[in-house]
Amino acid sequence: MFDFTFHNPTKIIFGAGKDTLIGAELSAAGINTVLLVYGRNSVIKSGLLDRVMASLKDATITCTQFGGVDSNPVLSHTREGVALAKRDKVEAILAVGGGSVLDEAKGIAVGALSDEDVWQFFIGKEVERALPVFTILTLAATGSEMNGNSVVTNTETRQKYNIASPHVYPKVSILNPELTHSVPLDYTAYSAVDAIAHVIEGYFTKQPGTHLQDRLVEGIIKTVIETTDLIMAEPNHAKARASFMWTATLALNGLTPAGIGEYNFPNHMIEHALSAIYNIPHGAGLSIVMPAWMKWYLAKNPSQFARFAREIFGLDSGEAGIAALEQWFVSIKSPVRLGEVEIPAADIGMIAENAEGLAKQWGIGELYPRKPLVRF
Amino acid sequence: MFDFTFHNPTKIIFGAGKDTLIGAELSAAGINTVLLVYGRNSVIKSGLLDRVMASLKDATITCTQFGGVDSNPVLSHTREGVALAKRDKVEAILAVGGGSVLDEAKGIAVGALSDEDVWQFFIGKEVERALPVFTILTLAATGSEMNGNSVVTNTETRQKYNIASPHVYPKVSILNPELTHSVPLDYTAYSAVDAIAHVIEGYFTKQPGTHLQDRLVEGIIKTVIETTDLIMAEPNHAKARASFMWTATLALNGLTPAGIGEYNFPNHMIEHALSAIYNIPHGAGLSIVMPAWMKWYLAKNPSQFARFAREIFGLDSGEAGIAALEQWFVSIKSPVRLGEVEIPAADIGMIAENAEGLAKQWGIGELYPRKPLVRF
Repeated sequence: MFDFTFHNPTKIIFGAGKDTLIGAELSAAGINTVLLVYGRNSVIKSGLLDRVMASLKDATITCTQFGGVDSNPVLSHTREGVALAKRDKVEAILAVGGGSVLDEAKGIAVGALSDEDVWQFFIGKEVERALPVFTILTLAATGSEMNGNSVVTNTETRQKYNIASPHVYPKVSILNPELTHSVPLDYTAYSAVDAIAHVIEGYFTKQPGTHLQDRLVEGIIKTVIETTDLIMAEPNHAKARASFMWTATLALNGLTPAGIGEYNFPNHMIEHALSAIYNIPHGAGLSIVMPAWMKWYLAKNPSQFARFAREIFGLDSGEAGIAALEQWFVSIKSPVRLGEVEIPAADIGMIAENAEGLAKQWGIGELYPRKPLVRF
Repeated sequence: MFDFTFHNPTKIIFGAGKDTLIGAELSAAGINTVLLVYGRNSVIKSGLLDRVMASLKDATITCTQFGGVDSNPVLSHTREGVALAKRDKVEAILAVGGGSVLDEAKGIAVGALSDEDVWQFFIGKEVERALPVFTILTLAATGSEMNGNSVVTNTETRQKYNIASPHVYPKVSILNPELTHSVPLDYTAYSAVDAIAHVIEGYFTKQPGTHLQDRLVEGIIKTVIETTDLIMAEPNHAKARASFMWTATLALNGLTPAGIGEYNFPNHMIEHALSAIYNIPHGAGLSIVMPAWMKWYLAKNPSQFARFAREIFGLDSGEAGIAALEQWFVSIKSPVRLGEVEIPAADIGMIAENAEGLAKQWGIGELYPRKPLVRF
């Protein structure tokens, strides 16, 4: 165990139909005007946007709608949101969507209270304040609903960079697992990969010996695999969708790294390069990166890989554990080779250079150091 | 998975020497005057009280000291604290001690802002506000450092009753595991029993099928057993003391029951009767109650007991799992029979009657119903 500070003040309201509570939650927080950030058509077609608007109306909350967030949210659109938030002097940002919508909403919340261009905060300027963020989650994957992270891509510079700040923890996040039933199976698979990726970074790159945290991680991974398999067989499996949703939240809410000391995010650094350059889904990039990284890293931490193989798959060698994970990615149809997403081997040098740039931005000079990362 | 709300806003600062940050934390929260609540001599002898006073002085915080909390905190002393807090118009309560000190401090925090006698809140009056509570924990066991519970005994009526309210979550809790090195091995054993008791109540009395939460519970129990065995062999085992401390916090901070639906606290209800009547240590009472209750309850939930046996002890029957837990309690010298703490069999009727009274106060008419309990 190592020193840590844990402070996660987000209120989670979990359950079917809970999205209609949003107006009351905003009112209870004294909010009268919001910028409602969302993505593309799905929240309109599903009727969710209408329900949210009705809930806001019931609570006499004024709302400026701002749709069009991309699935890898981009800086230019974030800047538009900042301008709208300032124009209408909103008191809070309400994000309705998946992790991308939440991440952009957090960026807008920061930019709205600053005279600086919002990108400055993604490239290192410290966040000192932000508008309060409220969220209604429609896709379980990133954990953004219960953490202080925001990732946005600057398409001009091809940099996918992040803010990590206590000021952007959502005040309230509403998790209605029924909203995730319509998530297509490919994106469900990418979400499962993402949740696993969030916990294995610390698990493999920390110092050995923090068994409580190992067990929390293993519980999360086993549940992700179990529930994803159930969802693949039956996309509307209510219990599995619900359990998956909460598991994905716990995978990146600060619980699993608390007390593990220094650790690193090599797989995320490499993948952020991939999706910054090629705009592939984050989870799809991760299922390509992870098995390859694990094979490379195996010899540096053999006992932890042996533990992983035993605890997750009941297997008796690190190699077998990695192979089983890769095979599981194949079974849920998430790619495991660059060729599957049409990235040529000739690009690897450029990808590495982009990842190295990100490593520098995160304050770490190489892809495998033992020094603290920003809280992510 | 079932609907739930999870909101745990306590900031945890964990690490050796962190107790000296208390003045700065209080200042950051705008606090100028505190009632410092503590127990008996140990915090004086260890030098902790002097360090805390120095930290308060550095932050120019005025302090009224209030020592003498019992290890099962009593109502009469809580009332004295309320009177002092009112007399000196303190802005916060600072608890320095174990779970008993924290629990009494929370009671004082509630009473200080009310014209009613504080006992009213323990017997059912709703808590609407409380002074902010800050804590420095010296004994890991109850989880009070990161939850909204407070248990106090009314010695006149022999009732050990509790408050459960979001208003008494500590604002900041400082966990310095070095402070726990001097906890005697008998109390360390009782603490281990208590932490296990906190998680098994939900694990066995909830509906089946919430595997994520099962895994979190199993991770906690395995870590409690592993670290307690290390501490028994080497009381100053720093890593084990630290890991034990954080594990005990997670055992009752709302994490493990989130999403499990309705559950119950039968072992705690019976044990609260024991310690209300006989003033035995809570953990000692629990190690007597739990194996007996488990044997009685086994047939009502055989698959979960089989799971428990397999996951915790690698055994293949529920009976064997219960026997192994009982044997482990024996191995750490926590009692497993009423006779060991000199409670005669003839008293069992009276004990049951007291526990039934508690069950009624908790809003449940019998010791094994399937209806929601107050958040505990």
